[in-house]
Amino acid sequence: MDERDLRILMAIASLGTGNVKELHEETGIPTSTIHYRIEKLKENGIIRNDLLDIDIQKAGLKLTLISDVVAEYGELTEGQVGEKLANIEGVNKVYFTLGDVDFVLIAHLTNRDMVHRLVNDFESIPEVSRVSSKFVIMTIKDEPNPLNDYSLESLR
Amino acid sequence: MDERDLRILMAIASLGTGNVKELHEETGIPTSTIHYRIEKLKENGIIRNDLLDIDIQKAGLKLTLISDVVAEYGELTEGQVGEKLANIEGVNKVYFTLGDVDFVLIAHLTNRDMVHRLVNDFESIPEVSRVSSKFVIMTIKDEPNPLNDYSLESLR
Amino acid sequence: MDERDLRILMAIASLGTGNVKELHEETGIPTSTIHYRIEKLKENGIIRNDLLDIDIQKAGLKLTLISDVVAEYGELTEGQVGEKLANIEGVNKVYFTLGDVDFVLIAHLTNRDMVHRLVNDFESIPEVSRVSSKFVIMTIKDEPNPLNDYSLESLR
Amino acid sequence: MDERDLRILMAIASLGTGNVKELHEETGIPTSTIHYRIEKLKENGIIRNDLLDIDIQKAGLKLTLISDVVAEYGELTEGQVGEKLANIEGVNKVYFTLGDVDFVLIAHLTNRDMVHRLVNDFESIPEVSRVSSKFVIMTIKDEPNPLNDYSLESLR
Amino acid sequence: MDERDLRILMAIASLGTGNVKELHEETGIPTSTIHYRIEKLKENGIIRNDLLDIDIQKAGLKLTLISDVVAEYGELTEGQVGEKLANIEGVNKVYFTLGDVDFVLIAHLTNRDMVHRLVNDFESIPEVSRVSSKFVIMTIKDEPNPLNDYSLESLR
Amino acid sequence: MDERDLRILMAIASLGTGNVKELHEETGIPTSTIHYRIEKLKENGIIRNDLLDIDIQKAGLKLTLISDVVAEYGELTEGQVGEKLANIEGVNKVYFTLGDVDFVLIAHLTNRDMVHRLVNDFESIPEVSRVSSKFVIMTIKDEPNPLNDYSLESLR
Amino acid sequence: MDERDLRILMAIASLGTGNVKELHEETGIPTSTIHYRIEKLKENGIIRNDLLDIDIQKAGLKLTLISDVVAEYGELTEGQVGEKLANIEGVNKVYFTLGDVDFVLIAHLTNRDMVHRLVNDFESIPEVSRVSSKFVIMTIKDEPNPLNDYSLESLR
Amino acid sequence: MDERDLRILMAIASLGTGNVKELHEETGIPTSTIHYRIEKLKENGIIRNDLLDIDIQKAGLKLTLISDVVAEYGELTEGQVGEKLANIEGVNKVYFTLGDVDFVLIAHLTNRDMVHRLVNDFESIPEVSRVSSKFVIMTIKDEPNPLNDYSLESLR
Repeated sequence: MDERDLRILMAIASLGTGNVKELHEETGIPTSTIHYRIEKLKENGIIRNDLLDIDIQKAGLKLTLISDVVAEYGELTEGQVGEKLANIEGVNKVYFTLGDVDFVLIAHLTNRDMVHRLVNDFESIPEVSRVSSKFVIMTIKDEPNPLNDYSLESLR
Repeated sequence: MDERDLRILMAIASLGTGNVKELHEETGIPTSTIHYRIEKLKENGIIRNDLLDIDIQKAGLKLTLISDVVAEYGELTEGQVGEKLANIEGVNKVYFTLGDVDFVLIAHLTNRDMVHRLVNDFESIPEVSRVSSKFVIMTIKDEPNPLNDYSLESLR
Repeated sequence: MDERDLRILMAIASLGTGNVKELHEETGIPTSTIHYRIEKLKENGIIRNDLLDIDIQKAGLKLTLISDVVAEYGELTEGQVGEKLANIEGVNKVYFTLGDVDFVLIAHLTNRDMVHRLVNDFESIPEVSRVSSKFVIMTIKDEPNPLNDYSLESLR
Repeated sequence: MDERDLRILMAIASLGTGNVKELHEETGIPTSTIHYRIEKLKENGIIRNDLLDIDIQKAGLKLTLISDVVAEYGELTEGQVGEKLANIEGVNKVYFTLGDVDFVLIAHLTNRDMVHRLVNDFESIPEVSRVSSKFVIMTIKDEPNPLNDYSLESLR
Repeated sequence: MDERDLRILMAIASLGTGNVKELHEETGIPTSTIHYRIEKLKENGIIRNDLLDIDIQKAGLKLTLISDVVAEYGELTEGQVGEKLANIEGVNKVYFTLGDVDFVLIAHLTNRDMVHRLVNDFESIPEVSRVSSKFVIMTIKDEPNPLNDYSLESLR
Repeated sequence: MDERDLRILMAIASLGTGNVKELHEETGIPTSTIHYRIEKLKENGIIRNDLLDIDIQKAGLKLTLISDVVAEYGELTEGQVGEKLANIEGVNKVYFTLGDVDFVLIAHLTNRDMVHRLVNDFESIPEVSRVSSKFVIMTIKDEPNPLNDYSLESLR
Repeated sequence: MDERDLRILMAIASLGTGNVKELHEETGIPTSTIHYRIEKLKENGIIRNDLLDIDIQKAGLKLTLISDVVAEYGELTEGQVGEKLANIEGVNKVYFTLGDVDFVLIAHLTNRDMVHRLVNDFESIPEVSRVSSKFVIMTIKDEPNPLNDYSLESLR
Repeated sequence: MDERDLRILMAIASLGTGNVKELHEETGIPTSTIHYRIEKLKENGIIRNDLLDIDIQKAGLKLTLISDVVAEYGELTEGQVGEKLANIEGVNKVYFTLGDVDFVLIAHLTNRDMVHRLVNDFESIPEVSRVSSKFVIMTIKDEPNPLNDYSLESLR
C-alpha cells in the first residue's frame, strides 16, 4: 500500500462515497487509476466489501488502546471536554459514561511511538486529571455495522 | 421506519453491499421499492452517506453499554471465551486486553429490558466470573472509518 | 395520568394529607374531582393503599440511580454540603457515611435526559470532587414503611 | 412508646391503612385506644402527618446500613437471589444494579447487635460471595414521597 | 462507675502507677477510698489484673474505628502530620505505613455522636486529604502485652 | 536483655502481675534477682512505668504489620475464623469489621524472616481467601491505656 | 545482528564470562570470529562496556511488561509457585511481595505476539488466579549494577 | 566486606570494567590489592562470575521496594519527572507505564531507615502526587542478563 492508495482510502473515508469521479476531484488521481487501485485493495483484503469497509489492521492501524479518562470540567461542559478528547489524532470513539470514570475512549494507532504521543496529547488537555489505558492484545470482534449483531426477530 | 426498512438495512449490513439487485434476492422486496426506501432513509438521516453508513441511534439502538469482563478460562482459550461473548446479541465489539480485566465489550441496545437480558446472557456463560458495565450517557464521537481520525501527514 | 392527577399527587405529597378539602385549597381543583381522581389513581395502581403510598414507577419516575459522592468541604460542614446535594431535583435520599465515600444518594428520574441533567447538577457544586453513579436495572424491594421489614418479636 | 404503640404502628404499616376499625380487627386493641394512641404518636413526632408517615429514628430504627453485595447466581436468577436478600429482617430496599456490584441494599436496624446478626444473615445465603457495608453517620434526607423531590414544572 | 471511679482510672493511666499515695495526690480522693474503689473495679472486671489493665469496653469505650488516612504534607514532615492525628481525642494508635495509605489509626469512642465529632476532627486538619474508616463489629483479640502473643521459644 | 529478662517479662505478661513472689513461682528465678532485674529493665526503658508497661520496640518486637483479611467462612462462624487468626504467633489484635475486608489484624514481629513465616501462617488457614498487609515505617502513637487519649471532661 | 551474534551473546550470558576460549567451546564458533564479533557488537552499542553488559532494546527485547500476580497456593509453597512463574520464557524478575498482590514480575519480550504467548503461559499455571499487566511505554532507568545508584558516602 | 572492597565494587560498576589498571586509576588502590580483593569477593560470592556481576543481597542491599507512582506533570514532560525519580539514591529502575499508574520503580536499600528516607525523597518531588510501595519479602528471580531468560530457538 503506497501513498496513492492511502490518499484514495482517506478520500473515501472523508467524502463518504465510493464514486470514482468525486474521488478524482478530491485527490487529482486519474479515475482509471482510482478504479484499478480500489480493485487491488479489495483483492488483498484492505477493502472488505462493496460498501468499502476497511480492514484497519491491514490498513496499518495495528494497535488499539482503550482509555478511561477522569476529568475536572472547570468552566467547560462535559460535551466540550469530550470534544477536546475527540480531536486527538487517532481517537476513534468517545463515550461519556455514568460511573467512576467520565469518558471511555477507543484509539487506533500505527506503532508504539504513537502510544507515547497519545499519552502526551491527553496530558496537554488541562481538564484531564487521570487517564488509565488498556492495551488490546487481540480484537475478537469489531463489527462495523451494529445491525449485524442482531437477528431480525429481535429488532422487529 | 417499518419492518421493510429494517429488512433492507439488515440485508445491506449482512451482504456488505448497496447493490439493489443483491438486496432484492436477499429480501424479496422489489428493486424499485428498495431503491425508493434507501433514498427515504438517506433523507431522514438513518443512512448517512453513499457508503450507506447507518446512524445507529436513529436506527433504534439508543442505548450503549461498555462492559469489563473478567473470565476463568478453564479448558478454553481466551479466543474461545471471547467468541462466546461476541455471539451475545447486541454485542458489537470484543477486545481482549492487557491489564486487570480480560475483555472490554461494547454493546448497542434498543431499550432498558435488553439491559436485563444482556446481563442474563453474561451470567449464562460459565467462564465469565465478573462483569462490570458502564452506561453511556452521551456518545460524543463514533467515527465508522478510523482513517478519518487522521491527517494524511500522520499516516504517510 | 394527566396534569390534574399530577397536581393532586404532588399536593398529597407536599401537604402530607389525603384530606380532600385541604387538597382543594392547595390545588383549586373541585373536591368532587379530587375524590374521583384519587379513586381512579387507586384503581390503576398509582396510589397503592389507604395511606396514599405512590407506586413511583407507575407515577413516571422510571429510572433510579445510586450515587457515591466524594467531597472536599472547604469552609462548609458536611451537613451543609449534604443539603446542597439534597436540594438537587430528583434526589430522594442523602446519607453521610463512614468509609471511603462521603455521601450515598438515591435519585428517581423520569428519563435518560434527566440523567445528563443530574450529572451536570453534581458538577455545579464546587465541594463535590468525585461522583460515581450506578444505574438500577431492577428494583427488587422498596418498602415505604421500614416497620414492615420486621416481625413484632424482633422489635419488642 | 410501649408495645401497644408498636403493634398499632406495625398494623398501619402492614395493612396500609389508618382506618381505626381495620386496625382494631388486626390488633384487638379497642378503637378508642387506637384513636388516642395515634394522636399521642403524632404529638411526639413518631407519626409525622395525616398520611401516618413514621419517623423511623424516633420509632427505634436508629442505625442505617448501606451494603454492596456481589453474588454468584449458580442455578438461580438474579431476581431470586435478590428476593433472598429482601427477606432478611431489617432490609428495606434491594436494588439490582449495573456496574461492579450486583445489589445495593439499605437496612434499618435498632442497635449494634443487629449489625452482627445482619452480617451473619448475609453469610448464610450461599449465592452471596462478597458484602461491603457502609455505616450511615447521619441521614441528611430521606423523603418518603419522591414527588416531593420535584417541582410541578419538571414533571409536567 | 461514677465520676470518682473515672478520675481514679484516669490518674492510674496518666501517672502510670497503682501507688495509692500518688493517686491521692493527683486526685485529692482519700487513699482509703482509692483503695476500696480499685478493689470494686477489679471485682466487676473493669480493672482486669494486678497491673491494673483496663477493660475498655466495660470502661465505656464501646466503639472502635480503624481509619486509613491519606495526607498531603505540604511544609510539614509526615511525623508532624502524624502528631496532629495523634492529638485527636480518642485516637489511640497512629501508624505511618508503606503502601497506598499514609497512616492507619485506631480510635476508641464512647458513642455514635463521637463518630461524627471524630470525622469532623479529621476534616479540620488541612494536610488530611482522604479518610476511609471501618467500623469494628467485634473485637476478637486485643492483647495489651504483645509478649503474650509469643511462646518463650520463639523469642529466645 | 538476656533470656532471664525475657522470662521475667513474659511471666509478668502472662500472670498480669508485678508481684515478685508469684513471678518467682512461675519462673524459678530467685526473688532478689527478679527484683533487681525489673529495676534494671526500668532503667534502660524496656519497662516504662510502675504498671510495668513494656516498650515493645526495645523488647525486640521491632516490626509492625497491619493486615486486611478477607475470609470465606464455610461451616465456621466469623468468631471461629477470627480465633484462628488470633492464635497465629505474633498477632496482637484482631478486629472483625464492617466494610470490604472482614478482619483487620495488627502483628508485632522481631525480624524479616518472621514476616515470611506470618504470611505462611495466613495461607495455612483454609478460610482465609485474601490477605493484604501493610508494613509500618514508624509508630507515631501506641498508647497502652486508651483513657490517656481523653480529657476527663470528654468522658464524664 | 545475525544468529552467530545471538549465539555468542547467549553464551556470554549463560557462562557468565567473556573468555573467548570458553565461548568457543560452548558455541563452536572460531575464537577469532568471536573476538571480531564482540568488537562489532560493542561498536554498534549492543554490548555496552568491558563487562559485556547488553543493551536489551538493541538486542531485540523491545517490549517490557510488569505483571501483578495473585495466586492460590493449594498444596504448594509461595516459593514453588514463584519458581513456576520464573520459568516462563521472557520473565526476568520475580518478587514475592507483601501487600494486595502476591508476585510482581518483569518480563522482556521481542514482539506483540509474545505478549499473547506470555498471557497464555500465565493462564496455564493453575495456582495463578489473577494477572494484571502493565505495558511499559518508556524505560527511563534500568541500571544493571545497583551500586551505581549510590554514592560511596551512603553505603559506607 | 570493608570500605576498600566497596570502593573497588563501585569503581567496577561506574567504569563498567574489570580492568585492574583502570580500577587503580579510579581508586588509588594498588593493582595487586585490587586483584587480590576481587578474587576474595568471588570466593565469598559477592562477585558471581567473570563478568563481575554482583550479588546485591550479599553486597548489603538487603531490602527491595517496588513503588507505583502517580504524577502531575505541570510544566514538565513525563521524561523529566521520570529523571527526577531516577536520581533518588537507591532507585534502580524507572518504568513509564500505560495504565492507572504513571511510573513503576524498583529500589534496593540497605536498611529500614532508608525506607523512611526514600519515602521522604518521593515527597520532596512536587510533581509526585501519590506513591504506593510494596515491600519485597523474597526475591525469587533477578536475572542480570535477560538473554538467559530465553532459549536460542525463541529468539532466532
